[in-house]
Amino acid sequence: MTRVLFSAPRTDWEEYREPLGRALDDVGIPAELEFTLEPERPEGIDYIVYSPSSQLEDFAPFTGAKLVQNLWAGVEAIVGNPTLKQPLARMVDEGLTQGMVEWCTGHVLRHHLGMDAQIGRSDGVWVPVVPPLARDRTVCVLGLGALGCAVSSALAGLNFDIRGWSRSSREVSGVACFSGETGLAEALAGAEIVVLLLPLTAATENLMNAERLAMLPDGAVVINPGRGPLIDDEALVAALDDGRLAHATLDVFREEPLPPEHVFWAHPKVTVTPHIASATRVKSAARVVAENIRRGEAGDPFLFLVDRSLGY
Amino acid sequence: MTRVLFSAPRTDWEEYREPLGRALDDVGIPAELEFTLEPERPEGIDYIVYSPSSQLEDFAPFTGAKLVQNLWAGVEAIVGNPTLKQPLARMVDEGLTQGMVEWCTGHVLRHHLGMDAQIGRSDGVWVPVVPPLARDRTVCVLGLGALGCAVSSALAGLNFDIRGWSRSSREVSGVACFSGETGLAEALAGAEIVVLLLPLTAATENLMNAERLAMLPDGAVVINPGRGPLIDDEALVAALDDGRLAHATLDVFREEPLPPEHVFWAHPKVTVTPHIASATRVKSAARVVAENIRRGEAGDPFLFLVDRSLGY
Repeated sequence: MTRVLFSAPRTDWEEYREPLGRALDDVGIPAELEFTLEPERPEGIDYIVYSPSSQLEDFAPFTGAKLVQNLWAGVEAIVGNPTLKQPLARMVDEGLTQGMVEWCTGHVLRHHLGMDAQIGRSDGVWVPVVPPLARDRTVCVLGLGALGCAVSSALAGLNFDIRGWSRSSREVSGVACFSGETGLAEALAGAEIVVLLLPLTAATENLMNAERLAMLPDGAVVINPGRGPLIDDEALVAALDDGRLAHATLDVFREEPLPPEHVFWAHPKVTVTPHIASATRVKSAARVVAENIRRGEAGDPFLFLVDRSLGY
Repeated sequence: MTRVLFSAPRTDWEEYREPLGRALDDVGIPAELEFTLEPERPEGIDYIVYSPSSQLEDFAPFTGAKLVQNLWAGVEAIVGNPTLKQPLARMVDEGLTQGMVEWCTGHVLRHHLGMDAQIGRSDGVWVPVVPPLARDRTVCVLGLGALGCAVSSALAGLNFDIRGWSRSSREVSGVACFSGETGLAEALAGAEIVVLLLPLTAATENLMNAERLAMLPDGAVVINPGRGPLIDDEALVAALDDGRLAHATLDVFREEPLPPEHVFWAHPKVTVTPHIASATRVKSAARVVAENIRRGEAGDPFLFLVDRSLGY
């Protein structure tokens, strides 16, 4: 019997318990799912399914665990944990990816088409300005992991003039790819809409600081469905206030829920969305967890392993 | 020398004069472009490029004209003209098609994602409701001509559960196609978002009347970038007011500009966009006109001929 510790808030447990059991059955793994803060014989736990909202902080007792499977796409809350010696996998859930594609495509089109000027407009003033075509609109996606690749491919499919940037060099069909520090300046220059889909690491924290924001053309829009600390908030507000940036649509924040008194809420050039750009879908995520456990039991390589030195 | 009468407002003439001359040069047709209300020897005019905003009403004098090429996608303003005996072609401009795809995809995603709840929200209330995935959202496109096909294919590419309806039966890859009166009821039942891209004919005027609107599920959204009279305006307002329909986003109207006092402007469940969903792009449209003239001179069949009995 394979022992799987489910280390997450009770609400997650209630959602995952049945789908995860079924997914393990489907891949032929007889497993015991344990939801407890203090498992008996921790050295006998084979796998840990982990949510960053969990109370588990010390991985040292789990000497027999073959894998810690993160339930979230982002691993910044666990990757630096000094007690974590086990392999760590991040979640790559096609439901989450698809939702992110939809949210990003929707908000890019919203800004591309200038929808906000019409939504809620009741003054009866008819201003028939036809927007440019997507092929004449330059959009830059920062981050070319699973999410960034899927989003930039979808935008390329709508004929946007798409650039992608990643730390190390990548190739994505239909996307002009840039990498490294020099590549970042090139990718940002002329980008009318920027979408942030980078992992949060020491190297990406405050990546969009005053200097980088100043590389964007006048009237640019920043869309952040990645992680709050990718942006220097004060620099962003300053760039919006002095009129250089047209708008920011933000789904993630340094503190969530975003406090009611935060300047972002009332700022006329900021749209706050409450961390809904995407979410792990229990059914498809459970299948990812089960597949990685199956791989561990079969001696196959794990999917979506985190490179601890890079932090993602 | 081929004689081409350009029958359109002066603003169109100023936009088209050079691109159309260049496009005719490019296809090797030596042509004389004439911009006048009273051309000399009208029987010697070979082609008429026509805008529905033109003052030309009597096509009888143009006995030698091989084609009347409409500059707009819609031909309802000319197709019933009893003096028109010449073949009539509608405009199928890839720039217009692409713009329509972008506008429709953007507004479908806007409603799918529930963006309006966040745009302009400043009350600091964090309501993290993750929208469903596109594959769980049923969208129906009415009309499967050049525009309807392109829009439904793009939405299918984003994984929406797409239905298409047309008068006569069609097949579009990735789209569940319906046709005829019975098919319309099937296509509308359960369609959470409906996009109207039908031509305006006697058969489609007021197609979305009270009865058809009642076939939609509660909370449905109607998007009309087609023609204003496709919808019975009073029935639409009634369905919005009694809470059955959630929203209407309208780009076209029976009277344009939409008068400032019209109920649509101030209605909280109506978004008015000022006929910007798409527009003919001069450069690509000029190429379409030149290609049809080249075909006429070479004896090749014309593109995009209107079936006068169907009205489109």
